[in-house]
Amino acid sequence: MRIGIYPGSFDPVTLGHLDIIIRSARLVDQLIIGVLKNSSKSPLFTVEERVEFLKQVTLDIPNVTIESYHGLLVDFAQEKNANIIVRGLRAITDFEYELQLAQTNHKLNPNVDTMFLTTNVEYAYLSSSTVREIANYGGKIEQFVPSCIVQSVYDKYNKIRSV
Amino acid sequence: MRIGIYPGSFDPVTLGHLDIIIRSARLVDQLIIGVLKNSSKSPLFTVEERVEFLKQVTLDIPNVTIESYHGLLVDFAQEKNANIIVRGLRAITDFEYELQLAQTNHKLNPNVDTMFLTTNVEYAYLSSSTVREIANYGGKIEQFVPSCIVQSVYDKYNKIRSV
Amino acid sequence: MRIGIYPGSFDPVTLGHLDIIIRSARLVDQLIIGVLKNSSKSPLFTVEERVEFLKQVTLDIPNVTIESYHGLLVDFAQEKNANIIVRGLRAITDFEYELQLAQTNHKLNPNVDTMFLTTNVEYAYLSSSTVREIANYGGKIEQFVPSCIVQSVYDKYNKIRSV
Amino acid sequence: MRIGIYPGSFDPVTLGHLDIIIRSARLVDQLIIGVLKNSSKSPLFTVEERVEFLKQVTLDIPNVTIESYHGLLVDFAQEKNANIIVRGLRAITDFEYELQLAQTNHKLNPNVDTMFLTTNVEYAYLSSSTVREIANYGGKIEQFVPSCIVQSVYDKYNKIRSV
Amino acid sequence: MRIGIYPGSFDPVTLGHLDIIIRSARLVDQLIIGVLKNSSKSPLFTVEERVEFLKQVTLDIPNVTIESYHGLLVDFAQEKNANIIVRGLRAITDFEYELQLAQTNHKLNPNVDTMFLTTNVEYAYLSSSTVREIANYGGKIEQFVPSCIVQSVYDKYNKIRSV
Amino acid sequence: MRIGIYPGSFDPVTLGHLDIIIRSARLVDQLIIGVLKNSSKSPLFTVEERVEFLKQVTLDIPNVTIESYHGLLVDFAQEKNANIIVRGLRAITDFEYELQLAQTNHKLNPNVDTMFLTTNVEYAYLSSSTVREIANYGGKIEQFVPSCIVQSVYDKYNKIRSV
Repeated sequence: MRIGIYPGSFDPVTLGHLDIIIRSARLVDQLIIGVLKNSSKSPLFTVEERVEFLKQVTLDIPNVTIESYHGLLVDFAQEKNANIIVRGLRAITDFEYELQLAQTNHKLNPNVDTMFLTTNVEYAYLSSSTVREIANYGGKIEQFVPSCIVQSVYDKYNKIRSV
Repeated sequence: MRIGIYPGSFDPVTLGHLDIIIRSARLVDQLIIGVLKNSSKSPLFTVEERVEFLKQVTLDIPNVTIESYHGLLVDFAQEKNANIIVRGLRAITDFEYELQLAQTNHKLNPNVDTMFLTTNVEYAYLSSSTVREIANYGGKIEQFVPSCIVQSVYDKYNKIRSV
Repeated sequence: MRIGIYPGSFDPVTLGHLDIIIRSARLVDQLIIGVLKNSSKSPLFTVEERVEFLKQVTLDIPNVTIESYHGLLVDFAQEKNANIIVRGLRAITDFEYELQLAQTNHKLNPNVDTMFLTTNVEYAYLSSSTVREIANYGGKIEQFVPSCIVQSVYDKYNKIRSV
Repeated sequence: MRIGIYPGSFDPVTLGHLDIIIRSARLVDQLIIGVLKNSSKSPLFTVEERVEFLKQVTLDIPNVTIESYHGLLVDFAQEKNANIIVRGLRAITDFEYELQLAQTNHKLNPNVDTMFLTTNVEYAYLSSSTVREIANYGGKIEQFVPSCIVQSVYDKYNKIRSV
Repeated sequence: MRIGIYPGSFDPVTLGHLDIIIRSARLVDQLIIGVLKNSSKSPLFTVEERVEFLKQVTLDIPNVTIESYHGLLVDFAQEKNANIIVRGLRAITDFEYELQLAQTNHKLNPNVDTMFLTTNVEYAYLSSSTVREIANYGGKIEQFVPSCIVQSVYDKYNKIRSV
Repeated sequence: MRIGIYPGSFDPVTLGHLDIIIRSARLVDQLIIGVLKNSSKSPLFTVEERVEFLKQVTLDIPNVTIESYHGLLVDFAQEKNANIIVRGLRAITDFEYELQLAQTNHKLNPNVDTMFLTTNVEYAYLSSSTVREIANYGGKIEQFVPSCIVQSVYDKYNKIRSV
C-alpha cells in the first residue's frame, strides 16, 4: 500500500495547497496531510484550527486524513508507515530548499522517497504568507483560499485588531 | 497620463535606488516614490527621515514626488491613480520574489502593471542592508549611497552606540 | 515622445507575445515590433509571413507598427529614435539571458533602456518552439496562438510534409 | 490502476536514470519507459539498441516495460492509458525546462499529471551527454553507466573511429 | 605568501565545512578559519566552543589556525594580511548571496579576492541549521558532523531541555 | 607547487577572461591557459590564432603559459601535473554547468580540484559569442576585448565577408 504524507504549516490552507492535495490523492492509496506544530513560530491559526480547515476542504476526498505532528518529518512518516512524502514546487528558491529537505530526509530514512508535483500555474504565485498579508490589510482573498474558510480568515484579523 | 509608483523601504536610499529612480522617471509622466511604513519591522531611519533623504537626492528630477504609505501597494496605487509599478531587478532570488509580487498585485488590481528595470551592474551587489552592516562597523559607504546622506547614516549609528 | 521596440523572432507569434504587446503598448507612445531576420537560423515562417501575422493580431492597437530588421538591436533602435526596448520575462534562464542582453545593449548605446514585463502566468510555459513542436505532430495549438493564425501554422506543416 | 511513463532519450541509459526507474517503479503499478525516436537528432545508439540496454538493466523489476515512441508525449500517454509522467530533476535549468514541459503537457491533456523525483546526489552531475563525451576520449565510464552496458558504449566508439 | 581566510558561523562545524577546509588548505600557504561573533544572532554554541570544535577537527592539518572575529570580514582579512577569502558553494541561493558578498568585499578592499570551492555532492544538502534541527528532535547526526563533536551537540540540547 | 589550468575556447579572449587570468595567476605558482581544440565546433579563430592572442595579452604576467589541448580536461591536467582547475563564474546557468563539470572532473581524477572566481561585475555580461555577434555587424568591441586584438577581430570578419 502506498501511503503518502503531505506536510506543511497550512496557515491557512490555500487553493494552491488544495490543488496539490487533489492531484496527489490520486497518486497514492492513502494521503495523510501532516500539519506541523512548530513551537518556534507563532502561527496565525492554532494547529487545531488549521486541521479543522483542512478537514472542511477535503470532505469529498475519501482517501485523505488530516493529522498534526511535531518533530522530524521522517519520524512522523515512519510512525504512519508512509513511504512517500508529497511536496508542491512553485519556484526556484522553493526548489533548492525542497531538494535539500528531500536529500536530508532520504539520508535519515532511506525507505521514504519524496515525490514532487508542480503547482498549477494559476496558483504559482500563491503562499499562505501572501494570503495573511492581504487579509491583514482588508484586501480580497476570495481568489486565494477555499471559499469555506474566507470568513474565518477575516474574523481572525478582526479579533486580533479588536484586542 | 502614465503615473508610476516606485515602492520600497529605502532604509536608506542607495545609489542603486537612485539609478532606478532616474531611469524610470524618464519612462513615465509622473513618478511617485512610495516609502513603506511597515509596522512589523523596526527600520534604522524613521519614515520621515527616509522621505527627507529621497527628497534631497531627487531635487533635480521635476516629475518625481515622495510619499509614505502603509497597507497594500495596490490600494496605494489606486488612491494615486497610478497604473504602473516600477521595480528594480538585481538577482535570481529577487526575480522570484518580484515575479510573485507582480502576479499577486495584478490579481488584486488588473489595472496596474509592473515594469521592471535591471539594476546597473555597478550597483548589482548593493542593498540597504549591506549599507547598514558596513556603516554599523564604521566601514566606508561613500561608494554605496548618495553623497548628501553619507554623514546622516554615520550620525545615526553614532547616536545608537552612544545610547 | 516614448518610442519602444519589442524585438523577437515571432516564429510564430503566440498568445504570450500578444499579452506583452497589449500591455507594453499602454506604457509607451509608439510601439514598434521588430521582427528579426536572422540569417544563421532557418525559421519556420519567412520574415514576411511573421510580419503579416503580427499585423493581423495587432489590427486593433493603434500605436503599434511592425517592422523587420537585421543586425544589432541597438542600431535598429537608434535608426527608429527608440529609447526603450521591451522584453517579456518568463523564467530564470530567460532572466539571465535577458539581463546579459540588456547590459550589453546599454553598453553599446547608453540612451536606450530595457523595460521588462513578466509574462502572464497563463502563458508562462509558452514559447514559439513549443507551438512548432506541437503543430509538427498535429497537436492542438488553439490555446497557444491567436485564433487568426492557427490555420496558417497547420498549413505550413502540411506543406512541409507534402514536399 | 496507476500507469506511469518515464520518457527520455536514454542515449545511453545512466546510473542516474536507473535510480529514477527503481524508485518510480515503487510508486506506480506499471512503469513504461518510453524511448524517444527523435528524427531531428542523430543519437549515438539506435532506438533498438537503447531499448535493448534498458531491458537488460531492468530485468529484475517486474512492473517495468520498455517501448519506443515518437510524436507528442501526451499522445503516447493516452495510447497507453497512462495517467502519470515520471521525470527526474537534477538542477535549476532542468527544473525550468521540466516545469514548462509539465505545464504544456497538462494543457494538452489534463488527465495526465507529472510526478518529479530528485536525482540522488550521487548522480546529480550525470547525463548521457557527459557519458558520451568521456567515452569518446577513452575515459572511464564504469561509475556512470550500468556495468552490463559499459563494453557496448566503448565498442560503439571504437566502431565509429574505425570507419 | 598566500594567506586565506575561511569565514563562517560554524554553529556547529559540519562534514561539509571540513571538506572545504581540507581542500582549501591545499590551495593556500596558511588557512585561517574565522569564526564570526555575531552579536545580533544567538548561536547554539558559544564562539569559544565553536573555535574549540574546529581546533579538534583540524588537528592534523598543519597550516590551519582558528580565530574568532567580529566586524567586517575585509577588516579582519587586512589585519591578518590575508589576500584570499575562501567560500563553499552549494546551491543557487548560496551563489547569489556569495556573489553579492564577494563583490561588496572586493569594493571595500580590492586587494582581497574570493575563491570558491563547490561543496562535495555528498554534503551538498548539508548546513549547520539542518544539523541543529535534527539534533533538537533527537535524530541521528553521525553522518553530518565530525565524529569527535557528535556527543557535544547532543549534550548541548540535553542541557537546554533540562533548563 | 600549485599548478593551475584555466581552460576555455577563448574565441576570442575577452576582457572578462583577462580579468580571471590576472587574478588567478596571483593564486597559483604557475598558470597554464588551456585552449581547447574542439573538433565538433567550427571556431571563428584557429587554435593557433587564439593561442597567439593569449600570448600577446599575457606578455607581462611571468607565471602564465599558453597551450592548446584536445580530449578530456582531466587528462590534460594530469599530463601537466596540474592540481587546480580555474573557472570564472558569471551567472546562474554558468553555475549549474560549471558545478556539473567540476563534479565530473573530480570523479574522473580526485587529485584535481576546481577553484572558482566570480567575474568582475564590469564584465559579468560579457562572452566571446557576444563579441563575435557585435563584431559581425560592425559594432564597437573596444570595451569588450583587449586593445591589441581589436583590429584582428575586425580583420577576420572583413576577410569572411570578402569570400
